Amino acid sequence: MRTRLFTPGPVMVPERALLKMAEPIFHHRTPQYETLFSEVNAKLKKLFLTEGDVIVLASSGTGAMETAVVNILSRDDRAVAVRGGKFGERWYEICVAYGIDVIPIDVEWGRAVRPEQIKKALDENPGVKAVFTTQSETSTGVFTDLKVIGEVMRGYDAALVTDAVSGLGVHELRSDEWGLNMVVSGSQKTIMLPPGLGFISVSPNTWGIIERSDLPKYYWDLKKYKKLLARNQNPFTPPVSLIVGLNETLDMILEEGLENMWARHALVAKAMKAGVYALGLELFPKDPSNVLTAIKLPEGLDGGVLVKALKKNGIFPAGGQESLKGKIIRISHIGYMDNYDILSALSGLELSLKEIGYTSFEPGEAVRAAQKVFIA
Amino acid sequence: MRTRLFTPGPVMVPERALLKMAEPIFHHRTPQYETLFSEVNAKLKKLFLTEGDVIVLASSGTGAMETAVVNILSRDDRAVAVRGGKFGERWYEICVAYGIDVIPIDVEWGRAVRPEQIKKALDENPGVKAVFTTQSETSTGVFTDLKVIGEVMRGYDAALVTDAVSGLGVHELRSDEWGLNMVVSGSQKTIMLPPGLGFISVSPNTWGIIERSDLPKYYWDLKKYKKLLARNQNPFTPPVSLIVGLNETLDMILEEGLENMWARHALVAKAMKAGVYALGLELFPKDPSNVLTAIKLPEGLDGGVLVKALKKNGIFPAGGQESLKGKIIRISHIGYMDNYDILSALSGLELSLKEIGYTSFEPGEAVRAAQKVFIA
Repeated sequence: MRTRLFTPGPVMVPERALLKMAEPIFHHRTPQYETLFSEVNAKLKKLFLTEGDVIVLASSGTGAMETAVVNILSRDDRAVAVRGGKFGERWYEICVAYGIDVIPIDVEWGRAVRPEQIKKALDENPGVKAVFTTQSETSTGVFTDLKVIGEVMRGYDAALVTDAVSGLGVHELRSDEWGLNMVVSGSQKTIMLPPGLGFISVSPNTWGIIERSDLPKYYWDLKKYKKLLARNQNPFTPPVSLIVGLNETLDMILEEGLENMWARHALVAKAMKAGVYALGLELFPKDPSNVLTAIKLPEGLDGGVLVKALKKNGIFPAGGQESLKGKIIRISHIGYMDNYDILSALSGLELSLKEIGYTSFEPGEAVRAAQKVFIA
Repeated sequence: MRTRLFTPGPVMVPERALLKMAEPIFHHRTPQYETLFSEVNAKLKKLFLTEGDVIVLASSGTGAMETAVVNILSRDDRAVAVRGGKFGERWYEICVAYGIDVIPIDVEWGRAVRPEQIKKALDENPGVKAVFTTQSETSTGVFTDLKVIGEVMRGYDAALVTDAVSGLGVHELRSDEWGLNMVVSGSQKTIMLPPGLGFISVSPNTWGIIERSDLPKYYWDLKKYKKLLARNQNPFTPPVSLIVGLNETLDMILEEGLENMWARHALVAKAMKAGVYALGLELFPKDPSNVLTAIKLPEGLDGGVLVKALKKNGIFPAGGQESLKGKIIRISHIGYMDNYDILSALSGLELSLKEIGYTSFEPGEAVRAAQKVFIA
C-alpha cells in the first residue's frame, strides 16, 4: 500500500501546488514577484483575520516563534509562558535564551490552560509584557480557546502571542477580534506546503512595541520586513518557489472558505474520535484539538509497536514525544484531507491493532462509527 | 524571447531538480529522510572541502551569516569586518546588532582587501576573535583570495569566517586547507536550487569556540544542529523538498567535479569579459570575480536604461546597488550555465546597447571575442 501521511506536518502537498513550484524560477526583485507577493499578502490577512501585517520568513515555525519573542520583548522584560507540552516549553526556552524573566504556567500534559491561570499569573507578577500561548499543542493534542484567553487579558497591558503553527486554518482564530498581538504559523501544516516558510501576524497596535524592542536581532528584525512590505518586497532573498506554491494553496483555502474549512476539520476530527471510541480506546487529551487525535494506549499496548504496524500498512502517524513516548499515538487530520482519508486511517488502525494482538473489537466497528458521523 | 536569468541568485534551477522536488513530500523523522540527509551531508563536505560539518539551515544566506556571528563570538568580543560592498557591510551590521566591538576595514568598492590590511587590523587591535570576509562581493563583482588571507592569519588567534554565498563552487575554496573556520553559503547560487536553504561549514577545531559562545540564540544555535547531525537529523523541521532537490544538484556538481566547475566558471567569466572589452567598455572591479561581470558604464549611459533594454530582450541582469545604482550593470554567470549562455548574454547586450544609443562598435564584435576564448 502506498504511504499516506497522517503526521501533524509535513502534510500532503496538493498536486496543483507541487506542479506550480516546479515551473522555472524567476527573480524576486521584479514586478512579477511583487504582484505575486502582494496577492499572497492580501490572502494571508484573510487567513489570519487581521487588518495588520502577516510577515513571511524563510524559516521553520520555530524561527517565527523566536521572531515573536525578540520583537515583542526588550532586555530584562518579564513574560509568561504556558507550558503544557513540547511546544509550550519551546516558548519558555526561547525566552530563557534571551535572558527574559519568564514565568511558566505549568499545565498538566493533556489539559488546556484555564483563563483563570493566566489571570492569576498576571495578577501575581506585575509588569508582564507578553503572554506566550499555544492554540493546538501538537505534542499532546490539546486545544486552547484563545478567544477566552483574549477576553481575560483585556484588562491587562501584556501582549498576547500565540503559536498557531498547527492550529491555523483548523480551529477558528480571529486575530484582531480576539486581541491577538502576534500569531505564529508555518507552511507545512494546514497551509499544505513543504516546510520552509514561517509566518507571523502583527496586529496594527503592536508595531509601537516592536519599535521599542531592544533585544539583539538582524534576520528576525520585523522592522526590516515591515519597511519592505509596503512595496511587496522582502529584506532578504525569499524562497521564491515556496511563495509561488503559497499563492496556490492560499487560493485553495479561500476557495473553500475559512468557516467551511474549520467545519471540515471539526467533522473529520469528530469522525476519527468516534472511530477510536468504537474500538474501546480513549483519547489522551481532556481538551482535544481538531488538528490530531492523540490516542491513549491501554496497558500492555506499546505505542512504538503500533506506529510500526500502521506504517507497514501505509498509514503514517506520529508516536508520543518525550514523556509520552510509547504511551500515545497521534493521527493528524489537517490540510489536504477529507472523509475518505479518515476511513483509510481507521481501516489501517483496525488492521494494525489486530496484528499486534489488540483484539477486543469487531472489524469494521471503527470505520462504521466514522461513517455514521459523516452520514448523520 | 523567453527570459534567461543572469542574476547573481536566484539562478536557473535544473529540470531534474525541479521535477524531483515536485514528487510527493515525505516525513523527515524517518529512515528515508535520514538516508537522504546523510548522503547530502557527505556531499556537502566534498563541496566545502572540509572534514568538519556543514550545517543546513532553513533560511536565506543572511540567516547563515547571522548564525556565524552569534556562534563564533561572545558578549563584548572584538571582531574585524571587511567592508568593500553591500555584503561586507552586512557582516558589520550583524556584529553591531549584537553589541560586538567591531572594527571595519574599509576597502574602496571595486577593490579586494589586501592581506596586509588584515594583518594591520589584527596588529593594531589586540584580542580580535574573528575576521569576517567576503569571497565574492556580489554588489561590486570583486573577488578576494581567501588562501592568502588564511596564510596571513596563521600567526593570530582570530577565527576566519567567510561569506562564500555566491562564490562557492565558482572559485576554488578549500575550507580546511586554508584555515577557514566557517564558510557561509546559500542554495540559490551555484548550488542551483530555489532560495530557502542557508549553509555554514564549521571546521573541526571551531566547535570549542562555539561551545563557549554566550550570545543569545535559539534557532541559530549550532550546538543544537551538531547534536542531531550525528543521526542525520535536524533540530527543527527541515525544508524537505529543498533537501530533496539539494541531493540532486549536489550530484550534478560532484559529477562535473569541483576543479572542472571552477575551470568552467573561469572560462565563461573570461569570455564574458572579452566580449565586454570588445565593445570598448570597462569592468568596474579592479579585482574581478568569476561570479559576475560588473560593467562600468561610460558617461551618458544610464545603467537603469540598459537593464530595462536587456530585460526586454530576454536577458535578465542585475543593476548597481546603493552608490553604484545606474553606474554599473552586473551580468552573472554561475550555476547551470555554459558557453552558449554567454553568447546569448553578449548578443542581447550588443542589441540593447545599440537600441539605447551606444553605437561605437560593430555588431558581432562581442560575440566573436567570446567565441575566440572558447576556441582558443
